[in-house]
Amino acid sequence: MASDDAPGAALELLGVVAYGELAAFDRLAEDARLAPELADRVEMTGMAAVQYAHFSKAEDRIVELGGDVLAAMEPYRRPFDEFHALTRPKTWHEGLLKAYIGDGLASDVYREVSDLADDSTRELVHEVLAADRFDDFAVSRVRAAIDADPDSAGRLALWGRRLVGEAMSQAQRVLAERPALAGLLTGAPNGSLAEITRIMARLVENHSARMTRLGLSA
Amino acid sequence: MASDDAPGAALELLGVVAYGELAAFDRLAEDARLAPELADRVEMTGMAAVQYAHFSKAEDRIVELGGDVLAAMEPYRRPFDEFHALTRPKTWHEGLLKAYIGDGLASDVYREVSDLADDSTRELVHEVLAADRFDDFAVSRVRAAIDADPDSAGRLALWGRRLVGEAMSQAQRVLAERPALAGLLTGAPNGSLAEITRIMARLVENHSARMTRLGLSA
Repeated sequence: MASDDAPGAALELLGVVAYGELAAFDRLAEDARLAPELADRVEMTGMAAVQYAHFSKAEDRIVELGGDVLAAMEPYRRPFDEFHALTRPKTWHEGLLKAYIGDGLASDVYREVSDLADDSTRELVHEVLAADRFDDFAVSRVRAAIDADPDSAGRLALWGRRLVGEAMSQAQRVLAERPALAGLLTGAPNGSLAEITRIMARLVENHSARMTRLGLSA
Repeated sequence: MASDDAPGAALELLGVVAYGELAAFDRLAEDARLAPELADRVEMTGMAAVQYAHFSKAEDRIVELGGDVLAAMEPYRRPFDEFHALTRPKTWHEGLLKAYIGDGLASDVYREVSDLADDSTRELVHEVLAADRFDDFAVSRVRAAIDADPDSAGRLALWGRRLVGEAMSQAQRVLAERPALAGLLTGAPNGSLAEITRIMARLVENHSARMTRLGLSA
């Protein structure tokens, strides 16, 4: 769908991706400081740099489409900033879990919305999605932490629930404030609540699978 | 010189570059948060990402030479971390000045020591040096700030002096603690104090030229 107003749809999508990646860069760079070992810090710093590379691709594409990257990002600053302000990790393992869970959620969202865009934007989004070389790092470290301290599993499970809860509540607010985006996403003018609920359900399902992969209850 | 023990010399040099860039990444990512405008934050985030790319090249080269990146960086963690802890910018303009001054100083140091390394390491160092596309951004922003508030010139000049002072004192400590590095740098076993002083004088001279470019007294 939406190939008629592809630039508009693409700009909405690219604005979300661009600011989401910029915010992710910022938080990963900050959370890397929680690393107990230099090796871990190097890994998470690398994750941050990857987010910047994604931002940069989204920016290029926005410019190609005749858009302005700052204007495209503006509507999405508050929800992402609020999400991150409300979910500041207090420990390295909380930071790692957030990196893994947040990256997974973001990928799922991009996948849901990428069909709305033109071919070349869709390609860019899928390229961004392919870069998940840090997943194994995060999973193995979190699993090792739980093995070493089984009591931490309960706390981390709660933390994962809180992360997905905050993400969903920000997403719902964005969709309420941006009926055009909700419309694009659901294929119904101003959005279909039923379809939004189905999308949210898919996101939560994938989130649960990631928690299981970590050995945590969702 | 030093082509006999090129791997050893190169690993010393690459260790400095790798940790210096990793620390610069970390500080630029943090200081980007001081940006008053999203556009400025995007620019400084880009500067941070460039430092990570440099780190990553140094890391690859260390591995090629059969070294270990964490071991190569270890001796340089404390001096860089101390430098940054002692020079945390309190304002966006202090952060910008630090980014410009710090990047310039680092480039000069890399240039001084790159002759000690093998061809391919030297090439890498010069590649890192070529990436100064952010200089104009920093210079134009700092100059505009001084034009808008001429009283700030005195404070920023003092800040520049403090930055170079802390950098020099960390460099001197490193050279005292790493006689092998001082030896490499000066071509004399354990280092020649006279030669070190000459190198420091060149670094300060270049620093002064940068301050002048900003319209500040050094």
